[in-house]
Amino acid sequence: MLDKQKCIRNIDRLVEKAKRSDVNLRPHFKTHQSHEIGRWFKERGISCCTVSSLKMAQYFSDDGWKDITVAFPVNYLEVDLINSLASKIQLNLLVSISDVLPRLLDQLENKVGIFIEIDTGYHRTGIDPSHSNELENVISDIAASPLLEFKGFLSHAGHTYKCRSKAAVEKIYFEEVEVLLDLKSKYRGKYPDLALSVGDTPSASLIDDFSEINELRAGNLVFYDLTQATIGSCDLDQIAIVMACPVVATYPDRGEVIIYGGGVHFSKDYIITESGAVSYGAVVLLNDSGWALPPTEMFVKALSQEHGTVHANAESMRNIKPGDVLGVLPVHSCLMADAMGSYVTLNGERISRLSYFIVSPE
Amino acid sequence: MLDKQKCIRNIDRLVEKAKRSDVNLRPHFKTHQSHEIGRWFKERGISCCTVSSLKMAQYFSDDGWKDITVAFPVNYLEVDLINSLASKIQLNLLVSISDVLPRLLDQLENKVGIFIEIDTGYHRTGIDPSHSNELENVISDIAASPLLEFKGFLSHAGHTYKCRSKAAVEKIYFEEVEVLLDLKSKYRGKYPDLALSVGDTPSASLIDDFSEINELRAGNLVFYDLTQATIGSCDLDQIAIVMACPVVATYPDRGEVIIYGGGVHFSKDYIITESGAVSYGAVVLLNDSGWALPPTEMFVKALSQEHGTVHANAESMRNIKPGDVLGVLPVHSCLMADAMGSYVTLNGERISRLSYFIVSPE
Repeated sequence: MLDKQKCIRNIDRLVEKAKRSDVNLRPHFKTHQSHEIGRWFKERGISCCTVSSLKMAQYFSDDGWKDITVAFPVNYLEVDLINSLASKIQLNLLVSISDVLPRLLDQLENKVGIFIEIDTGYHRTGIDPSHSNELENVISDIAASPLLEFKGFLSHAGHTYKCRSKAAVEKIYFEEVEVLLDLKSKYRGKYPDLALSVGDTPSASLIDDFSEINELRAGNLVFYDLTQATIGSCDLDQIAIVMACPVVATYPDRGEVIIYGGGVHFSKDYIITESGAVSYGAVVLLNDSGWALPPTEMFVKALSQEHGTVHANAESMRNIKPGDVLGVLPVHSCLMADAMGSYVTLNGERISRLSYFIVSPE
Repeated sequence: MLDKQKCIRNIDRLVEKAKRSDVNLRPHFKTHQSHEIGRWFKERGISCCTVSSLKMAQYFSDDGWKDITVAFPVNYLEVDLINSLASKIQLNLLVSISDVLPRLLDQLENKVGIFIEIDTGYHRTGIDPSHSNELENVISDIAASPLLEFKGFLSHAGHTYKCRSKAAVEKIYFEEVEVLLDLKSKYRGKYPDLALSVGDTPSASLIDDFSEINELRAGNLVFYDLTQATIGSCDLDQIAIVMACPVVATYPDRGEVIIYGGGVHFSKDYIITESGAVSYGAVVLLNDSGWALPPTEMFVKALSQEHGTVHANAESMRNIKPGDVLGVLPVHSCLMADAMGSYVTLNGERISRLSYFIVSPE
């Protein structure tokens, strides 16, 4: 279930912030993966986006997006789809190690933009900025081909997800910007238009001024989730999606409610609650205007494939019976949304999203 | 990717074991959720199955299965689908608490079988066998309605998943059987045909003689996975599915390979390896006859939405480059298979499975 108003407010806040800092907003669409939600950005003047797979790029290209960055290390094996998309739109690819371009160029047929991914401390993907030779090699490869346009440096400070305060997020963001500004000052003579692009949701939520960089790619904040609330990126009432889960059994002796909602629906990310318990989701009570926190905390303490086990105290248990429907706020909205095929708004409107499934002709 | 031969061998082993013990095999189809794999059981004389949702029951009913147990606490909210299925097939439902039948009966239109779920120690769902009044209430409710047929007692000893030896699994299985036999001896006078149904894969793999019970419902063992290998239910070479993941970046300095394969593909269950590391999957090398373990262990140490980070030593790293495809054995095959839309056999044959997605008309 999607609270469209909350989602729109989250989008508006980001759009306003980008405007104030005069940076290009290239929102990441991997969280919602929905044509309709993409259009909510378009209606606010946003004309480019970020995705994390070529399949998503194709999906949004099909809905009229003409400038898309695939923020995932370029995968040669998908060169046919790269060629097909690059013939239709401004497609930007990510180079995250030094030796991928020669092989890509063997089969590349159309012009693409290239962002070089820089590892500013997350240590997942990206070139170590101290490896000057690697950077030089990539930039020479780009310069040598008429099919490649150097767009700039991109980083994802995913280590902000481990932060638990604004100060900690700021520290990482300022380190990231320092690394990127150094690179810019080194290469801007030759490439005056090169852009610096950053992307994590904690920074996008907690930093006010982005004027030193050129592009913001945050995505999770359309929905937010318990992970972001734990970091401090949002309040619980900014979380815009909830899973509606039927109650199928209650065990008052154990203080447990069993819901139809399991690992296949939520995926299995968890947070540690303030009392030290593992939580796969926070229970909310559904009402006419959406949902509200219950008087006493209830949370999903265990997940099987289809079962969820909710921890509840005696007081809460008294009002819950099989046939009721509880809401569950997600720990990780990207994975929960990905496990579902579509959204339903509070008005009952169905909003579709990209299906990963190959629907067989059977 | 599915190794059909391994899968068929897993099925054959289970079918033979059930025959030897003269118990009814009602395999759980929630793991594979595939018409075609279901038919491999049918070809071996199996005529009934277990599922964990009414949607799965409908899917297998569509392929000619006429006797299906939904091993999930009955959900009133789906009474329309219950009525529709019960008009076509022998549909068995699960009662896991004492007060659900009266409300179901308000709207039930066709005959269904009822299994009473007994909690033999897993403490997820099921009636506590020491709560005689609750049991009596359910059995009276069943007896009072011409639409309900009492089929027997069912349990799922999911706590065997925490075992790490055959002896530990046996202990749980024997406790489970003792509880169920007590109930049978109490009620068999009035219900001479009542069946005892058990279901977990560790027991189905490690116990040889099931002659004391009447029905076996195991499901995960069609594919097995690293969790089952850790318990001791299977060897690594009995695992029948693997995810094929393109390599997109290598970082020799860090001993890490980045693959296209993340939380949306694997879900996020993990095991702890022998060396104490968190593993979201074990890397295997794909070859002409399927796959094989590499000379040195490699495993998925971290998952983002679409990225997987593989831990590899210098020796292994030397032979891996972007554009290669690595295999990853799943930690939990049910969740990984659920995240994918279909299987591809080693011969390239596509095998479809139930799609959870509501494919919109957009």
